[in-house]
Amino acid sequence: MRRIEKEISNEEEIIEILKNGKYAIISLCKENEPYIVTLSYGYDDTKRALYFHCAKEGQKLDFIKSNPNVCGTVIEENGYTDGCGQAFRSVVFRGTMVIVETLEEKKKGLEVLINQLEKDPIPTKNKFLKKENTYENLGMLRLDITDISGKEEKAES
Amino acid sequence: MRRIEKEISNEEEIIEILKNGKYAIISLCKENEPYIVTLSYGYDDTKRALYFHCAKEGQKLDFIKSNPNVCGTVIEENGYTDGCGQAFRSVVFRGTMVIVETLEEKKKGLEVLINQLEKDPIPTKNKFLKKENTYENLGMLRLDITDISGKEEKAES
Repeated sequence: MRRIEKEISNEEEIIEILKNGKYAIISLCKENEPYIVTLSYGYDDTKRALYFHCAKEGQKLDFIKSNPNVCGTVIEENGYTDGCGQAFRSVVFRGTMVIVETLEEKKKGLEVLINQLEKDPIPTKNKFLKKENTYENLGMLRLDITDISGKEEKAES
Repeated sequence: MRRIEKEISNEEEIIEILKNGKYAIISLCKENEPYIVTLSYGYDDTKRALYFHCAKEGQKLDFIKSNPNVCGTVIEENGYTDGCGQAFRSVVFRGTMVIVETLEEKKKGLEVLINQLEKDPIPTKNKFLKKENTYENLGMLRLDITDISGKEEKAES
């Protein structure tokens, strides 16, 4: 039953998990009430940040406006192992959520998202990136990562 | 780029996702600081609760003792779809985390866990359930669900 958790100490391996992931699960809280959301994301290596697209209002934004400190995880499943559970690698990060306001950064963020999420990014970029009306109702969030760690978990063999 | 989110209104379908899942991601908070953990679980239909095994001390327990209110999610991935992202069904629940104290309930919880997580539960039950030393260092948590909702998400076709 014992599960082995191994800290991933190699920074490159941690970043690789972020680069390969498709969605992140984000823990928010407001007045000590926890909340959780699952969001598709793109990772921007130069900014060390994640971009998310979202609606322009809603519960998520209410939480972020109240408390921009977040904690999140990206999980890479590696299948079933004996001993009660899955094998996986995961990254846990803390950071600050920023509501992106400028059109320029929204374009940048959308490009990062498309690059990460689409198998063939070019047609999607051509379809959306340069059209001004893409951005009319597009909210965007940037999560600036302050701390990050990774672990690998599997059952004892 | 637009993603379709459909509320799952059928209670049975929501419970089915909980019964099929192997791990849950739990959002905790303490003094307005968010925290996130990923835990293997077993779902107990009669109690409408999730059981988790854990260590007897650590950061997770510190958060729970400070604030037992949690929010969590179970995600069922259904592969890539065009339009920036994954298709998935997910359940989000709120509830209260309880530290299980009695040996009797620890046994019950462990059985629930093994039933959910093991492809072939019988040998694992025989190996662990009746041995008293299984429980010496085994911490156990029960999450009593108060609210639950489900959604299905995919890209617009």
